[in-house]
Amino acid sequence: MKVVNIQEKLGLFQDHWSPKIIGSLNGQDVKLAKLKGEFVWHDHAEEDELFMVIKGSLTIEFRDRTEIINEGEMIIVPRGVEHRPIAEEEVHVLLFEPSAIKHTGDVQNEMTVATYDRI
Amino acid sequence: MKVVNIQEKLGLFQDHWSPKIIGSLNGQDVKLAKLKGEFVWHDHAEEDELFMVIKGSLTIEFRDRTEIINEGEMIIVPRGVEHRPIAEEEVHVLLFEPSAIKHTGDVQNEMTVATYDRI
Repeated sequence: MKVVNIQEKLGLFQDHWSPKIIGSLNGQDVKLAKLKGEFVWHDHAEEDELFMVIKGSLTIEFRDRTEIINEGEMIIVPRGVEHRPIAEEEVHVLLFEPSAIKHTGDVQNEMTVATYDRI
Repeated sequence: MKVVNIQEKLGLFQDHWSPKIIGSLNGQDVKLAKLKGEFVWHDHAEEDELFMVIKGSLTIEFRDRTEIINEGEMIIVPRGVEHRPIAEEEVHVLLFEPSAIKHTGDVQNEMTVATYDRI
């Protein structure tokens, strides 16, 4: 049990679209990620996923609309809902999601991360 | 599914030690709370609990030590660990914890909230 400084953890990595685990509880992980560019369309069949924006402005495309999540805002994407995150400028996000979640759902491509580093 | 602005939600209530639900996912709730003064010693037998400090400086006493969590920092209190939050000045926190969690564990006193409002 220790105090975690979010900005300090964000300083430990620079790669995009590669979430890092900063804490685990109740079968869920808290992750940090830096995003830039366009991700792939995907969904998570069994997992709801929370995005909280720490820096920048995150766009998430859904099949029927687009949402913009600014610094200090969050959105919960329910299981089964296809989404595509887009960061025109670099965005820093905190994620809260089940430990078992797969990065790109059942989609596999060059952006897929098989395991998450713990920092 | 909607975008939630954390500061906007914090503006909706003023009472202390009464967490408000701002989102739910995977059997967990995301809550906001304003804290001031000393809470009661308690633990949660089955639930780990995350405190993320949005404003101010939160002290958490444990039986063997004391931790201070400043703005932009977080701590995960594992299940079964007795703790007592203290806020000398008002603190704003975000909590992640299972929806089934009881406010003061098996302790009941005048600070205990039986149900959580959703805002």
